[in-house]
Amino acid sequence: MKIIAFDADDTLWHNESYFRETEKKFYALLESYLPEHALAKELFRVEMQNLELYGYGIKAFTLSMIESAMEISEGTIELADIQKLIQYGKELLQMPVELIDDVEQVLQALHGRYKLVLATKGDLLDQHRKLTKSGLGKYFHHIEIMSEKKTLDYERLIRRLDISPNDFIMIGNSLKSDVLPVLALGGTAFHIPYHVTWAHEHVDREIIHENFHSLTRLTDLLPFFKKKE
Amino acid sequence: MKIIAFDADDTLWHNESYFRETEKKFYALLESYLPEHALAKELFRVEMQNLELYGYGIKAFTLSMIESAMEISEGTIELADIQKLIQYGKELLQMPVELIDDVEQVLQALHGRYKLVLATKGDLLDQHRKLTKSGLGKYFHHIEIMSEKKTLDYERLIRRLDISPNDFIMIGNSLKSDVLPVLALGGTAFHIPYHVTWAHEHVDREIIHENFHSLTRLTDLLPFFKKKE
Repeated sequence: MKIIAFDADDTLWHNESYFRETEKKFYALLESYLPEHALAKELFRVEMQNLELYGYGIKAFTLSMIESAMEISEGTIELADIQKLIQYGKELLQMPVELIDDVEQVLQALHGRYKLVLATKGDLLDQHRKLTKSGLGKYFHHIEIMSEKKTLDYERLIRRLDISPNDFIMIGNSLKSDVLPVLALGGTAFHIPYHVTWAHEHVDREIIHENFHSLTRLTDLLPFFKKKE
Repeated sequence: MKIIAFDADDTLWHNESYFRETEKKFYALLESYLPEHALAKELFRVEMQNLELYGYGIKAFTLSMIESAMEISEGTIELADIQKLIQYGKELLQMPVELIDDVEQVLQALHGRYKLVLATKGDLLDQHRKLTKSGLGKYFHHIEIMSEKKTLDYERLIRRLDISPNDFIMIGNSLKSDVLPVLALGGTAFHIPYHVTWAHEHVDREIIHENFHSLTRLTDLLPFFKKKE
């Protein structure tokens, strides 16, 4: 049986847009120090510097906001503003889970005919919480929260699922994390872009590959999976 | 085949002692505000308040240190001290992995005769990193990083491992997280205390149960698993 794996953030539910709203609050807090584009650049620099140590997720993001706010202000920011940044992080952790388009209809149509897997990066507790809030847990045979989504990480996942890479189909919004490593292993990848892409996930080239499909929305998947395989 | 699952922090490698060293630095930083026992109480209160939202791990601990430092100092702490707290967190994330006693000898003796599983709480990336640094990855059939270790979480793990709870043996240093929930499900639990126990993991009663064993050190396990089952 083929396995269809879904990315979660910005594939099944909205995520990046919440981060963007928080970044805007961060820019507003520090607007007296630097123009927005410079603040954005500085925050991203600190995030990338911390990525190997902190990994992905909201706690990492909060710590990086605090660190870059102190750097940008050269140690002159008010403590009350640091408190605000901690609060922004806590608010992000409590955001509602809003499903994207017709996720549930798509999962329902595929469920039972394929083994469905959730394969997502990020913070363990936060991703479990979002899955619970989403109500989508019942559709998934296996949940994999990955600390990275590189070729090696997919290799491990595919081995654990005990299938051949040819039987692995990945669906997600990131060319870098959901598409390229899966194609490299001989799997199939469907790209469904989200309207916002984090700079870290940006890929600046066109992908042409026989196992690659680019779709506009999740329901466009259904014609590809009409009959049981 | 029976499955033997090992907790990681303070069972296979030292962990809590590193946190204690960091807490001491936190107390030193804030010694002008409150006596040590009051600082400890306050930090623990903030950690418990954030536990549901942040979960376990060093990033959560760092954010809670920052939050409680601001509260304890009533907003008068220096920004440079906040910077130090962030630095303490980063240092914790980069600590070497020191194996406890004869871990490797024990895993080697059991490997192949039992399926060995690593079942640990904490931060996803950090636990993966520690496992890699430990060099113990090769002994484990399955790695499970859990956002909680309550009965329900073990139930899920046991279901995923596709065994009966009677065939599940858990080894760890926490009565609360490694022993009680496993006994409740009908599994077997070995308790090997670590010399430091985080207040949150403290259990204030004696456990008497036919499937419960209390040992002094990891090698004491070996006589229980002499022959293949």
